[in-house]
Parts: sequence; structure tokens; C-alpha cells
Amino acid sequence: MIDLARVRAAQRKLATAKASERTAALSSLADIMREQDAAIATANHQDLAAGASLEPQLKSRLALDAKKRAGLIDGLMQLAASSDPIDVEVSRTKLDDGLVLAKVQSPIGVILVIFESRPDAVIQIASLAIRSGNAVVLKGGSEATHSNRVLVDCVRQSLERVSLDPDAVMLVEGRAAVQELLSRGDVIDLVIPRGSGQLVRSIQEGTRIPVLGHAEGVCHLYIDARADAAMAVRLAVDGKCDYPSACNATETILVHEAFVPHIGRVADALTERGVELRVGERLQSVLPRAKAASDDDFHTEHGALIVNMQMVGDIGEAISHIARYGSAHTDAICTQDPAAAERFLREVDSASVFHNASTRFADGFRYGLGAEVGVSTSRIHARGPVGVEGLLTTRWLLRGDGHIVGDYSSGAKRFKHERMK
Amino acid sequence: MIDLARVRAAQRKLATAKASERTAALSSLADIMREQDAAIATANHQDLAAGASLEPQLKSRLALDAKKRAGLIDGLMQLAASSDPIDVEVSRTKLDDGLVLAKVQSPIGVILVIFESRPDAVIQIASLAIRSGNAVVLKGGSEATHSNRVLVDCVRQSLERVSLDPDAVMLVEGRAAVQELLSRGDVIDLVIPRGSGQLVRSIQEGTRIPVLGHAEGVCHLYIDARADAAMAVRLAVDGKCDYPSACNATETILVHEAFVPHIGRVADALTERGVELRVGERLQSVLPRAKAASDDDFHTEHGALIVNMQMVGDIGEAISHIARYGSAHTDAICTQDPAAAERFLREVDSASVFHNASTRFADGFRYGLGAEVGVSTSRIHARGPVGVEGLLTTRWLLRGDGHIVGDYSSGAKRFKHERMK
Repeated sequence: MIDLARVRAAQRKLATAKASERTAALSSLADIMREQDAAIATANHQDLAAGASLEPQLKSRLALDAKKRAGLIDGLMQLAASSDPIDVEVSRTKLDDGLVLAKVQSPIGVILVIFESRPDAVIQIASLAIRSGNAVVLKGGSEATHSNRVLVDCVRQSLERVSLDPDAVMLVEGRAAVQELLSRGDVIDLVIPRGSGQLVRSIQEGTRIPVLGHAEGVCHLYIDARADAAMAVRLAVDGKCDYPSACNATETILVHEAFVPHIGRVADALTERGVELRVGERLQSVLPRAKAASDDDFHTEHGALIVNMQMVGDIGEAISHIARYGSAHTDAICTQDPAAAERFLREVDSASVFHNASTRFADGFRYGLGAEVGVSTSRIHARGPVGVEGLLTTRWLLRGDGHIVGDYSSGAKRFKHERMK
Repeated sequence: MIDLARVRAAQRKLATAKASERTAALSSLADIMREQDAAIATANHQDLAAGASLEPQLKSRLALDAKKRAGLIDGLMQLAASSDPIDVEVSRTKLDDGLVLAKVQSPIGVILVIFESRPDAVIQIASLAIRSGNAVVLKGGSEATHSNRVLVDCVRQSLERVSLDPDAVMLVEGRAAVQELLSRGDVIDLVIPRGSGQLVRSIQEGTRIPVLGHAEGVCHLYIDARADAAMAVRLAVDGKCDYPSACNATETILVHEAFVPHIGRVADALTERGVELRVGERLQSVLPRAKAASDDDFHTEHGALIVNMQMVGDIGEAISHIARYGSAHTDAICTQDPAAAERFLREVDSASVFHNASTRFADGFRYGLGAEVGVSTSRIHARGPVGVEGLLTTRWLLRGDGHIVGDYSSGAKRFKHERMK
């Protein structure tokens, strides 16, 4: 087992280093990845050879081709050029003369990231951790063992090259290690699982450490009475077919009864693209050739070319359906009625709520967050796509001149509480 | 058992009501508390009579005298006058022409608050919950049963008077109810325990729902080589004696060896005020009459007129001692050396870190947060004294005009990502 006390000590060194040192580590990592490009490719070929029998989708995630490797180096250069978040002041208040309170950004501490298949996650996660002063313990999938090892080695070399402690980035292997780490709330501050809903759920259920993630994405598209039919078709097809296994893919299409005369266009467009329709009772007479949806279907993230459809009497019924069956991930309304749109945006209590846009936009890159740490459906800390701010917390720094509380309780002094920033 | 589905439904109504309706509920609550002042006083007298044998400190927390009752009404008027946080935009980004992403403040949802003794907490918590659109399930101590009941009744009446759903504020009684609620992560989004370290620890260990709180406050005052001796005395006395049972009271005083010649002044000032000194090995020859501190003492929140003292060779040793024995709550340095102060502020990884100020300042009111939801030593969501922002999360609202992700993956369109706010 890795020595978590060493990881914590390395984190403190990384967090209290100068911003320029963290930047230098990121630039060095880009250099090292260029220098060791052949070794990285070789290790990845080993994993691909061992995983010859994997499904094509898994294999494409596992592959670290020249384009992906170049993309990772580009990302590192961008992150090295971005401003350092540590100790940046969020607010400043003058509590009294000579007594100033600042709230500053700080790293969270030690983060355990558990991910599957994609070895590029090593570089993305480790580089975000370095930029934000966090230590990271990485547990990758066994199918990517060789790739993960060589990439973590690159990261540790980059820290060493700039005289930072390499133990701020550690790789662990094997399920037993994860089980032990999940019980170490004393040294692990946050767990980020990236992978299947099953992986996330099992981690959420197996630890008391806060988990940033989402087990499910049961996303809805609600087609309102006053929807533009052509737009509804576009949003339905993009939401379901653009990348069906994504967490932000549309799983259920709710249709206002006034739109039902046009629903055939949506249904045809989907079936033409190979989507299986599963329709609720109230739509069965309209779409008689479609399979009947069960109550379970409406709770399910199909992650495939299957979509549930249901008719609703009004927007309130759509909002209730989403509250009952949804996962509070991403839900969209298609309508030309501004009042209906604003009601939907206000009343649907999901991490992302859209008007006339595909549910597929719920993503850190598309939101312009620079990098995505994960998508959270928890209601605390961070919600929806989470960028580097999900790896940050705040601390309060108070600078005085011998101030004591007794002077304020006695009435000798009074607080001023002037907001300076 | 209360019907949590009703609580959730009431929360959605409260959250989606107009800001003016939440304001009206807060004003009505002030009116109702004025109207029912006699009934509140009577209920509180019943609790005080039943608790005649309680310790004086507990009795003073339990008492809801005329001054406290008037203070609660003042607080309600202030909160009614404060701006409503819901749907306030935190940021706005133009992703592309006609596609605008807004991040808005939102309530968390349903919050379980478990508190001891102080019935005024009912009004403070419920009013913050109303302002922030959260439902709250309150579990108070049995010693305040009559007071809690009449106060929760006032809150529910205030919601009814403005046609909001009273089920947004519920009282539960009995330990069995708490146990069941702690297992209901599907309907409770956050638990806030307010009370002893023992209460908080038992709750943290008994639930997978996120807990906002702190089990311990092992706070340090480090007296540096270049400390002003008179100031060191003031900070030590205020930190330990102002309110010894508070979580932000100073538990351990670390002394740089260069300050040791002056340590007698600090020790005398403390012993004059009845403080028992427990000193580490390296100070025993300097303060031979003091009791020896055990390793356990340095881990302990005494919550009484007892203070640990230890000598350190330099500031680095002080920082290491705090990392090892502290609870990351609040730690202070006393020094006239700006470089030492800045190093301490940067390297001590606690929720609050102070220079030349008493640890007792770590408090929501003193920080100017308006109200204090609690003090958090968790590293995620909120850290240190937490005001109403601890009851808020964010949602992402995206407004488009039929935008689909396929256009961006195909290269037909490109994201602009212009920060508008």
C-alpha cells in the first residue's frame, strides 16, 4: 500500500510552492511527454494487444494515438499558460480598523480518482491537480496498466525535474487498494469516480468520503405545445444519437398533447437512425408500431439507441415527470413560448436546464470550463459539469494587530464589516 | 414519521415562489412572534421548569428571555430586508451566437438540522431556510420540546399566512426519527448538526448524506520569536478565557524558543485567570510548577480553562505541530515579523488562519456573514464559518435557438466562449 502520509506531505509542498513552480512542472510535463512519445506509444500498444478482444468502443477509448498524444501536450501548454488559482482572493472585508479578513482559494488536499479505460485521463487529471495544488492518487482500469504506468511516471518525473515532490501523484493498482483507500477519510478528502454508473454507485455506497460524480444521467427533452417541429426533430436526434452512451444523452422525450399531431416527424427521424422507441400508454394509439415502455424504462439510462416517449397534458405534468423519474442531470424544453421556457428553467431542479438546446451540451469543454473534472449531480460543493473550481476550496485569512474578541463583546469596540472586495 | 415527499414538494413551491413571497413569509413570522410573545414565553418557562436541575450554562442556553425574543424579531426584519439569493446569476457565458449559458444560485433542497438546547436556533435556521428556498427538518433537544413546538408552529403559520406550503418547515422528535432520516439520502440533501463534538461525530459516522459541521476545534496560538510580549498575553488570555467551551477557543499555545524568556508573563496571566497549564517536555524546566502535558492533551479540545503549551525550535516546527495535532479549524500566529506571518498564513492548512488576532474571531457574525449556519472543517462545499451561502448551490441554465452538439463536433460551428459576466 502507498504511504498516504507521504502523499499528504507532498501535497503541502505542492500547495505552498510558488505559482511559477507549478507552472514549470506543467511545462516540464509537456517536454517529457514529447521526449518519451515513443515509449508512451509502445506501452499503449501493449495494452491494445492484450485487449484485442475488447469491444470496439472500449478499444477506441484505450487507444492513445498520435492525435490524442498531441492533444494532451496542447492541453498541458494551455494549462501552463493559465493563471494559478491558489491564494487568489475571493473576497476581502474590513472587520474593523487594522483587522482585515480575506477569503482565498485553496486546494482541497488529497483526491482519489478512480477511472476506467482512458489512459489520457492520467494526464488530464494530474495536470489539473498540479495547477490547483492538490495531490492525486490515481486508480486506473487494469486494461490500461502499461499506459497508466508510463504516463504516471512522466508526471512524477516532471515534478522531480522542478524539485517538487513526486509523491503528489501516485498510481495504485488492484481492487483491494481501492477498498482500503475508500476507508481512509483521514487522508483522502474527495473521491472522483469517472466511469460507468455501476462504478460510481458502488463507490458512493462504499465510502463516507465525499464523492464528486453522478451515477446516472436520465435526461429529458420536453417538446412543448408551442415547439417548432423542425427544431424538435433536430434536438431529439442530436440528444439521442450524437453519442448514445454519454451521460448527457436524451433518454426520454415528453410530448405536450398539442404537439402530438407532429410527433410522427420526430418518431420517424429517430427510427430512421436506428433508434428503438418505447412509448408510454398515452402515445400507443399514436405510434402503434412502437414497443410499450414500462415504468422501469422511464427510470433507466439506456446508454444506447433506445428512447422512451410519453405524452403529458401540460408543462406542469412534464416538470413532475422529470422530478419523479429524472436524475437531476440535464433536462431541456423545446418551445417558442418564452413564458413556458422561463417556467421550465425555474422549476426543473436539475444541475443543467436548457431551452431550445440539445441535452448533449452539458459538458465542461462545451461550457468553456477549460477542463472537466467530472459531472456532479450532488447538490453540494459543485453541480453539473465541474472544472478546476471543483478541486478548490477556500480558507479565511485574518490579519490584525493584537485584536481580541473581548473588546467587541464588552462594547469597547464595534465591528465595521466594510466589504472591500 | 413525517412524509418526506410532502417536504420535498413544499420545498419546490418555496424555491419557485417569487422573492417577494419569501420576504412576506419572513415579515409575517416577525409579526406572528410579536403576536404570540406571551405563548412563546410560557412554553419556554415550561421547559425551564422541567429543566430546573440542568447545569447553569445549559439553562442559560435554554432560556428565551425577552431580550433574546426581541433579538430574534430584529434578525427576521433584517433578513426580510436582505436581497433574495435565488436565481441570482453568478456568471454568464456566450457559448456561441444565440447560445448563452448562465450559472445561477439555487437552494440545496431539503436540509436536516439537528441541534441541542437553544430554541432560538429554530427561528434562526428556519428563517435562513426560507430566505434561501430550502426546506428544513428540525430535530431539537428534548429539553426544549415546548419551546421548539411553539416556535415551529409560528414558522408554519407564517408560511400559511402568505399561501406558501407550511410543510417546508417540519419538527421531528425522538432519536428513532433521526436515525431513519439519516438513512434517507434520497430525500435529505445535507445534514447540519449543531452541538457538541460528540453529537457531530456520531452523526458523521452514522450517515452517507453530506454533513456540514465540525466535530472538534483544536485551535493553536503560535507565539513567534518576534512576537510582542504584551500582545501575546492579550491573545492568549482572550483565546482561552473569553469563552472556553467555544470551538474557536485556543487549546494549545506553541512558543518559539527565542520567546521563552517572556513566556512567564503569558503563563502568569493565564494562571491568574484560573487556567490550568499543561506543558510539554521542552517547557517543563521553564515552568516547573505546571502539570506535564501528555501526547493526548495536544489532540484534545479541552473546552475548559485548561491550555496546553509547547516549545518549538522554529516556525516550521510550529506548522508541523499544527498539521499533526490540530483539527484544521482556526490557528493563529503572534509576530511582528511580516515574512513569518505570511509563511504561517500560507502554510497552515486550516479553515481560518490568523495573524495577530485571537482565535475567537472565527465566527459567522464576527466575519460579517449576517448569520451563521455552522462552522465547517470539511474541505468541500464550505469551509470555516458558513453563512447563507452554505445553504445554496448553483444550477446551469442554457438558452439556445435549436442548437445541437453535432454542428460543433462536425466543425460546422465553433464555440466562442465569451465571458459576459
